[in-house]
Amino acid sequence: MKKTLLVYMLLIAAFALYVFKYEQTGPLNGTWEEKGLRGSIGETYIMITFQSGLEYWKSTLKGFEDAGDALGVTVEYRGATRYDAQEQTTVIEQAIARNPAGIAISAIDPHSLVPAINKAVDAGIPVVLFDSEAPGSRAYSFLGTDNYKAGKIAADKMAELLGREGEVAVLTLPGQQNHEERTRGFRDTIERQYPAMKVVEVADGHADTLVSRNESIRLLKAHPKLAGIFATDATGGTGVGEAVLSQKSSHPPKIIAFDTNKATLDLIRGGTISATIAQGTWSMGYWSLQYLFHLHHHLTIPAPSPSDDNAPLPVRVDTGISVVTRKNVDDYYAK
Amino acid sequence: MKKTLLVYMLLIAAFALYVFKYEQTGPLNGTWEEKGLRGSIGETYIMITFQSGLEYWKSTLKGFEDAGDALGVTVEYRGATRYDAQEQTTVIEQAIARNPAGIAISAIDPHSLVPAINKAVDAGIPVVLFDSEAPGSRAYSFLGTDNYKAGKIAADKMAELLGREGEVAVLTLPGQQNHEERTRGFRDTIERQYPAMKVVEVADGHADTLVSRNESIRLLKAHPKLAGIFATDATGGTGVGEAVLSQKSSHPPKIIAFDTNKATLDLIRGGTISATIAQGTWSMGYWSLQYLFHLHHHLTIPAPSPSDDNAPLPVRVDTGISVVTRKNVDDYYAK
Repeated sequence: MKKTLLVYMLLIAAFALYVFKYEQTGPLNGTWEEKGLRGSIGETYIMITFQSGLEYWKSTLKGFEDAGDALGVTVEYRGATRYDAQEQTTVIEQAIARNPAGIAISAIDPHSLVPAINKAVDAGIPVVLFDSEAPGSRAYSFLGTDNYKAGKIAADKMAELLGREGEVAVLTLPGQQNHEERTRGFRDTIERQYPAMKVVEVADGHADTLVSRNESIRLLKAHPKLAGIFATDATGGTGVGEAVLSQKSSHPPKIIAFDTNKATLDLIRGGTISATIAQGTWSMGYWSLQYLFHLHHHLTIPAPSPSDDNAPLPVRVDTGISVVTRKNVDDYYAK
Repeated sequence: MKKTLLVYMLLIAAFALYVFKYEQTGPLNGTWEEKGLRGSIGETYIMITFQSGLEYWKSTLKGFEDAGDALGVTVEYRGATRYDAQEQTTVIEQAIARNPAGIAISAIDPHSLVPAINKAVDAGIPVVLFDSEAPGSRAYSFLGTDNYKAGKIAADKMAELLGREGEVAVLTLPGQQNHEERTRGFRDTIERQYPAMKVVEVADGHADTLVSRNESIRLLKAHPKLAGIFATDATGGTGVGEAVLSQKSSHPPKIIAFDTNKATLDLIRGGTISATIAQGTWSMGYWSLQYLFHLHHHLTIPAPSPSDDNAPLPVRVDTGISVVTRKNVDDYYAK
């Protein structure tokens, strides 16, 4: 009986020791050194966009979610359903009211959301911007594409496809800053670096597949020697692709598109579109959440402060682009 | 006796369950989701600079170490002792031979290290660059200061200090790209935004405190109404400070310096220097290690690939600057 009691006591002691050790080193206690970078499931980070239905946001949200999984925190997605600044402001106000651990926002335009963003920062809620910025705001960082450079890389790819010679055209959205930059980067590069190439026309695709298709047919008729078309937006690329397919030419022009929606990827797989420019959308989402996490936990030096003179995080991040061709297209379908 | 045995069995069962649960969720097992972001102590990441004695690297190394602690990996620092490209190349070659998990490099100049950097990437070792880049290389990312913007912010601060009027001068290192950019950002901003201010001279401080001191005394004599001096390098700022102290003027010019070495911070604390521009050095080191960690563990989408057409990481990161004044100077002394 005494022996049993001894075993009994020893067992309780071992159990207590184990519990103690577990509490010391377990994933929800201790310093970062002991547990790795890890938050708590009660910490909620919110990603907010406009036009929540767009296929374009999927990969960014995947990056945001992947970082949430890696860091053990909760993420949510909220979007204005339409392309409407007032609606997006309301979505941000609703998010602020819930006092989340951080908010990542893609701004519908450079100005409308500034008051709502600053209100969140004033309330002590970390905010970063991705994809589309709001330069006057007090968000801590912006993560997005360098569109001029994207246009430049499209021009280099086009030159490679055409053996550095021939007439090319651009199908874009005149007046929209991102697209103007892409067009300018493309044009400047052709003019400066490829003397045997020429941009013969810049057309307006109205961000609409049918308009883009009709404009492409017009371009092909107006410029019989047209050897390549660069479409700066996702809908434009599929429009050009459809136009070229309908023409059944023996020498179809080379097409470079933008973004990686399914229709574009299918046309690359089929050989109609030669390449598309994939933005670093996963990176935008992933590093947005990492940044918010670091602000929320005050892990940065200098620490976040309401002062404008202080940069606890990288202030501007060029998330880069990748060139998608038939060779690597399978990697870009949504998983 | 039977009762005791039952308690005994229950206790063993509870213990076994606890051990099982611990092994499932413990910090060194399981997926990222279960353990947070955490590597292993056997993973070694190396930071390499030129002129290893410079006070300037301390904060970057601190960031690199802090990220290493947070992610549970080992970090090392190696530097060429002198300002010598051949020596830095040798240091990189020695690092490659040890097959580390990643290397972060500050390049002595834009060209010399490109072959060594590419050799590391070809060997499957992730490389990122910080502070000074090597644009032709295949390093995955560059993290550093936007120097033009830093000059612009210095100009805005100078305008604030001088009530938007008066003569100012710049003490810089003509011919060195970083410093040319800072000077250009400062000059452009004064010219475009502050019509009652004027940059009366741009002088050469030779990156030497004594030369900077003598040049400052000359500037003060040549321009009796000089109201402010912007020194674009760390040694220049202390030189200007010493010159102004030696002159014992009743209206000393306002001084804006660059970087946060101890001599500069002491002069801010004492009131001789009004402000200095702190670079995001901690961020450069911290996010360099985070990036290398993500490459090493293939955590990015797209995955790292030897192709130039693929950007698994943000390709260019503006780590931002902070304006240091008497108000916040204590935060910037090395800890």
